[in-house]
Amino acid sequence: MAEAATRRRGGGGASRRAERSAVSFETARYIQRNIPNFEILNDEALEIIEANAETVLAEIGVNIVNNPTALDLWREAGADVNGERVRIPRGLARKLCETAPQTFTQHARNPARTVEIGGRNLVLAPVYGPPFVHDAEAGRRYATMADFEKFVKLGYMSKWLHHSGGTVCEPTDIPVNKRHLDMLMAHMTLSDKPFMGSVTEPSRAEDSVEMCEILFGKEFVQDNTVMTSLVNINSPMTFDDVMMGALEVYAKNNQACIISPFIVGGAMAPVSVAGTLTQVLAEVTAGIAYSQLIRPGAPVIFGAFVTSIDMNSGAPTFGTPEASQITYGAGQLARRLGLPYRSAGAFTGSKLPDAQAAYETANSLNMGLLSGVNFMLHACGWLEGGLVSSFEKFVMDADQLGALHKLAEGIPVDSDAQAMDAIAEVGPGGHYLGCAHTQANFKSAFWRSEVFDYKPYETWSEEGARDTMALATERVRRQLETYQQPALDPAIQDALTEYVTKKKASMPDAFM
Amino acid sequence: MAEAATRRRGGGGASRRAERSAVSFETARYIQRNIPNFEILNDEALEIIEANAETVLAEIGVNIVNNPTALDLWREAGADVNGERVRIPRGLARKLCETAPQTFTQHARNPARTVEIGGRNLVLAPVYGPPFVHDAEAGRRYATMADFEKFVKLGYMSKWLHHSGGTVCEPTDIPVNKRHLDMLMAHMTLSDKPFMGSVTEPSRAEDSVEMCEILFGKEFVQDNTVMTSLVNINSPMTFDDVMMGALEVYAKNNQACIISPFIVGGAMAPVSVAGTLTQVLAEVTAGIAYSQLIRPGAPVIFGAFVTSIDMNSGAPTFGTPEASQITYGAGQLARRLGLPYRSAGAFTGSKLPDAQAAYETANSLNMGLLSGVNFMLHACGWLEGGLVSSFEKFVMDADQLGALHKLAEGIPVDSDAQAMDAIAEVGPGGHYLGCAHTQANFKSAFWRSEVFDYKPYETWSEEGARDTMALATERVRRQLETYQQPALDPAIQDALTEYVTKKKASMPDAFM
Repeated sequence: MAEAATRRRGGGGASRRAERSAVSFETARYIQRNIPNFEILNDEALEIIEANAETVLAEIGVNIVNNPTALDLWREAGADVNGERVRIPRGLARKLCETAPQTFTQHARNPARTVEIGGRNLVLAPVYGPPFVHDAEAGRRYATMADFEKFVKLGYMSKWLHHSGGTVCEPTDIPVNKRHLDMLMAHMTLSDKPFMGSVTEPSRAEDSVEMCEILFGKEFVQDNTVMTSLVNINSPMTFDDVMMGALEVYAKNNQACIISPFIVGGAMAPVSVAGTLTQVLAEVTAGIAYSQLIRPGAPVIFGAFVTSIDMNSGAPTFGTPEASQITYGAGQLARRLGLPYRSAGAFTGSKLPDAQAAYETANSLNMGLLSGVNFMLHACGWLEGGLVSSFEKFVMDADQLGALHKLAEGIPVDSDAQAMDAIAEVGPGGHYLGCAHTQANFKSAFWRSEVFDYKPYETWSEEGARDTMALATERVRRQLETYQQPALDPAIQDALTEYVTKKKASMPDAFM
Repeated sequence: MAEAATRRRGGGGASRRAERSAVSFETARYIQRNIPNFEILNDEALEIIEANAETVLAEIGVNIVNNPTALDLWREAGADVNGERVRIPRGLARKLCETAPQTFTQHARNPARTVEIGGRNLVLAPVYGPPFVHDAEAGRRYATMADFEKFVKLGYMSKWLHHSGGTVCEPTDIPVNKRHLDMLMAHMTLSDKPFMGSVTEPSRAEDSVEMCEILFGKEFVQDNTVMTSLVNINSPMTFDDVMMGALEVYAKNNQACIISPFIVGGAMAPVSVAGTLTQVLAEVTAGIAYSQLIRPGAPVIFGAFVTSIDMNSGAPTFGTPEASQITYGAGQLARRLGLPYRSAGAFTGSKLPDAQAAYETANSLNMGLLSGVNFMLHACGWLEGGLVSSFEKFVMDADQLGALHKLAEGIPVDSDAQAMDAIAEVGPGGHYLGCAHTQANFKSAFWRSEVFDYKPYETWSEEGARDTMALATERVRRQLETYQQPALDPAIQDALTEYVTKKKASMPDAFM
């Protein structure tokens, strides 16, 4: 784990000097956990929740809105369909989930960046969806395509980020019906990491597949998964035609979807953790079962975006103990289903990348690692309850992801790690700074932040007494200055440009 | 758990109005975990470390400095003593540890605040030791007795802090040989929570016992533990006469000590986690064995203050993955010895209570909870690698400790928590905000920060767009304004004052 897939760039003194600078173009291998998961629920509790979820599906059912084909599929599969309400007999949804793969490969155009999703792995992807961006200089404002491109660049340059993500912010200056084209273009050309497809219309999912066929080749896309996209469930227990339409396109094309309730506890699910877990399990098994009705074996991820609520104001709250409990519990439920698990992220409700943001984020990131998450969306850059993509927080969070890598390596106990020679060499009252074992191991012994300040107080004061925000501002600037685009076959670049140009010309702008 | 021991104050409209204000004088019961511990090491790894620790004790040994009595005790117990080097035959130190209690009670003068240390419990105590203080207004400066008293007051008013601690900051304006008297006086009179005794000279430990005899009564102190004090080991493997002298006083008087290596990995222990754990185990078992040689059954805590180092600058680093690994592993070693465990805290190397401080602190607090810590010193207020007690960070961290309480409660799965009626009542497409289950449970359902901002962006902007630091400044001010001293028998107060006055008059000031 943490074996780096180094990208070396072309020759020339300037290029070599760039390599020696603080900027790194390395991407760490996705995390392969060598530590256990934290199992918060015992078997009895898990069995109660599973039995209750079956009761919910069989007796209450789910609504499948504006989607007669889906109703037909469910009816044929043995469900009781009454209007748009689908009641699923006990065990049926769970049984249908069995054809979904336990792990799958999402290919990147740079094969060194291909990821395995599932098992003991953890793939980290950036923030998804905010209409606003924030930085120290210009404050909070609507996101534009220029911002989007900057975030893709920052993601490409983040050593600990394995995935380029999807809607790293909403490019609100581009028509709604065309922005998916520009967003995909940015992921495909400004980065070589794996990415996500569009889900805002089934036709945009089709466009996403077609652009991937240009990038990867048509045959490759039919045989391989090259996108993992986010399909939200309208909790409680409602599956709308837009999201299901995107799921249908992706499943038919063997492309992966995260099937994910989006829950603020107390609003879209019960105020209790056990009740919320029951609903999450019912919703996800219904959604994944449906993906398998479309195409048995289609790659999917058990998603759970669940957080708590401030009952005073109704605001969603993040990094809270109830959110952690749900994330730990949902991980256990996903593993018992044998499915890859998506949850957690760099969550916060704070309006600034301040201490609140960092406490809440660190709570979320830690529980994400220990709860066995396989795909972590929003792993960096999230601010203000997901309304804002923050430039500074992006690099702060991305840096912290390095700590997750190191923690996940576990504790080696081989002869060198036991360090008995060192203890004997140094002895009582000595110090280890110069001993042979330290000399041999110090370079890799300790994870080190590339954002935080470790200097003595006096040096730090002389340098301007900067807080983390100021240090991050500087890092964002430096990263964007030293960014270099990964190479891409010019013929592919041209074909993508032609596709996007034609597609855009084929329809009038729409901003709704 | 989290059952509150409410302190109600005397009558009068003003007092009742004060009670209804934002300030709370409640203290939560110490945490009684209803969640598992995170077990990072498997049995094989634990056995390797335990065997290696025995080898260290038997073949390398420990230094016991300037303490002939201790050498005699060890010789009588069967150790090989050569000068100040003590080699302890395999199994002997571990065997001697068996008489130490698995859990013990530390009494507070307010019985509702008495704590049980050990088992599945977690007792939270504030920062210990910094010579500097910091706040937003006045910045960083040497700590004074006035600062000390403010921290004791803040600790008394913190709902989630079970313990008043010890040297919450060093009152540098008071002579070194007298400050322990003023510090104890502050803990005894400004708070009614349990506290720590002095360890800087054996005579000061004696003074601490004598002051407790005034506060609790002489007989009570002989039969009960009323102090838990911090005895550091000079790692690697050195036990100095000052610390051991304090331990001797406390153990003889049945008072508790944390016996704790103080390790910056790579300097005072090997750069590897397994090597560090080996050394920690060897040191702590030797120290605890010694406490049991003094008085079998003396209450002690297996301590581990261990963090990593920045190999670039030599600065200690906090909230790092290696520190987490060590804390998880040391917890397992402590449990296998059947001893209460002290580790973790609100650690950070940052110079400000900024995002760095909060990421590092949250990493540390989370691993502290999950690693099974029973006594967490430094649970709030720590800044700049322990050089600084921060007023703002004290209240920020103390607030986060509430999240630990809630997480530790675990996930109820009783019939009410299953919320099946709520799921049926709301159904697909509904919302839970008004349903019966939510109405019945919303008050206790979700933990809520009393420092963070959960308001909408617009409200937050209108109120001055304050970051967490500014919100915390306000909370510190409010807490200190509304502080009320807990009642104390005036005769005891007078006797304490007389003791301190006489003691101070009995010796000249010393500032070294």
